[in-house]
Amino acid sequence: MSHALEPALPAPQVLISEVGPRDGLQSVAATMPLAAKCAWIDALAASGLSEIEVGSFVPTRLLPQMADTAEVVRHALRHPGLTVMALVPNRRGAEAALEAGVHKLTIPVSASAAHSMANVRKTREEMVQEVRAIVALRDQRAPDVRVEAGVSTAFGCTLQGGVPEDEVVALAVALAEAGADDVGLSDTTGMANPAQVRRLFQRCFAAIGSKTGAAHMHNTRGLGLANCLAAYDVGVRTFDSSQGGLGGCPYAPGASGNVVTEDLVFMFEAMGVRTGVDLARLFAAREALRAGLPGEPIYGMTPEAGLPKGFAQETAHG
Amino acid sequence: MSHALEPALPAPQVLISEVGPRDGLQSVAATMPLAAKCAWIDALAASGLSEIEVGSFVPTRLLPQMADTAEVVRHALRHPGLTVMALVPNRRGAEAALEAGVHKLTIPVSASAAHSMANVRKTREEMVQEVRAIVALRDQRAPDVRVEAGVSTAFGCTLQGGVPEDEVVALAVALAEAGADDVGLSDTTGMANPAQVRRLFQRCFAAIGSKTGAAHMHNTRGLGLANCLAAYDVGVRTFDSSQGGLGGCPYAPGASGNVVTEDLVFMFEAMGVRTGVDLARLFAAREALRAGLPGEPIYGMTPEAGLPKGFAQETAHG
Repeated sequence: MSHALEPALPAPQVLISEVGPRDGLQSVAATMPLAAKCAWIDALAASGLSEIEVGSFVPTRLLPQMADTAEVVRHALRHPGLTVMALVPNRRGAEAALEAGVHKLTIPVSASAAHSMANVRKTREEMVQEVRAIVALRDQRAPDVRVEAGVSTAFGCTLQGGVPEDEVVALAVALAEAGADDVGLSDTTGMANPAQVRRLFQRCFAAIGSKTGAAHMHNTRGLGLANCLAAYDVGVRTFDSSQGGLGGCPYAPGASGNVVTEDLVFMFEAMGVRTGVDLARLFAAREALRAGLPGEPIYGMTPEAGLPKGFAQETAHG
Repeated sequence: MSHALEPALPAPQVLISEVGPRDGLQSVAATMPLAAKCAWIDALAASGLSEIEVGSFVPTRLLPQMADTAEVVRHALRHPGLTVMALVPNRRGAEAALEAGVHKLTIPVSASAAHSMANVRKTREEMVQEVRAIVALRDQRAPDVRVEAGVSTAFGCTLQGGVPEDEVVALAVALAEAGADDVGLSDTTGMANPAQVRRLFQRCFAAIGSKTGAAHMHNTRGLGLANCLAAYDVGVRTFDSSQGGLGGCPYAPGASGNVVTEDLVFMFEAMGVRTGVDLARLFAAREALRAGLPGEPIYGMTPEAGLPKGFAQETAHG
């Protein structure tokens, strides 16, 4: 009686962008060996995840965990249909990423003036110029590659506290004008709340329309899934998350862990929103992560509790 | 520019109903001593929580942790302005609760036919009759006392799997007709998802209007706060939660922990929804809980991470 209209409508869909091999692995002290990274990415791809951020092109002395990213990219490119993504902080990183053959670049740009200087020793305006230069490079060398700019500290900053929303929106507009194909908003510090998430994404949609990109939420204060739900409600359809919540311990002081992919996929699938991810295979991929990072805590409440009795997943996958 | 209207509107409010001293304490193996229960309730009340479920009136042989509930009620009644609540499974429990002087009774009624028989050896129809009898008793002996019926397993059941939504709504209607002042919906088993929460509460509002009561969510699969947000979005304004997520380990296999009060209050306060609770005092109350239950795991991501830099709480309290 209440669902008369539902069968006629196609199921809504979201894109889950797995960032564990980049955001997760660069946050832990240990370095996962190349073979283990490749095995983990294979297991993630086998679950139906169709976009994986496999590493970052940054100086090895800063992040030795990411030294083999070009080889990881080349391995990941073997998976047909998988969008292979990498983070680049600047033009030099973008050159290396394009050289390796990535399908998509993501460039972090801080909304917080204080964080921008502390993190990359560049102002926000200088970072917009960097994005413009990377877009020009892409146009010249690999026009099919997609360029995403991720506005970090968009919901607050551990250095300066609040970040004015007008500045976040102005930065999103500047990045879109600089040629970014997608502009996402990142709760780098786990300070976002659902009302703020709805407000800021709505303002982004109003300002840059369909260039509004991913919600990248952390679970520092337990609000990660609620914030993803809030973003979904106002039209966001791409979500970054990390298997096992890798990337800082999500349940510890000062934690900065990403939203747990397993819990996020379960939430959407249970809501009838299709992710294309097979939960059983996704849970199985945790073993590849464990094998590659022995002793590292791996989170996820849905894998620990198990799927609810009677829960049947209709996957687009397999 | 974007918030021109906000200062003119009064801040929305919610009622946080703390269930730790009942739902939490009855779920752990240890028994908290009477003096420690009283000290914990004092600390919870001091934080501004205005409703506390302080215990249950059930046979001592079943739940020895609850044997001193009448004394706990008498202590809690000293706090002016605090609504002192207790769970009763039947008429006999209601008599004892009214005798002790509670302000509010809550009666759990399973939506799952299988769970109802397993839990109280009564059908759902027999439980509706029990509620009717308790309402008559209340009318006769203490007409100012409020009677809440809590529909347990409303979102799924570990025995039978799915629970038909039509049966949940029909039960809510029967309970309202039996004279319950409020009818809440409980995700006893942590199986709810936000789409289902919105749908079922909307159907309840349509069927029984303002008798629609609390959302009682568990965090078994990490969706507790997202489900509370979903309930808030469709008009729910009372939320059950437990300090420290007490009530089964929320991060372990088979977990059944309640939504963590600290994280729930933080979410609402950060959204600009007033709870009347002072977060610093609420965090301080964790010490009273720890002292009364040494060695028991106490959860809560916001207390562990701390409040965000620049976060200023405008409390109605103090």
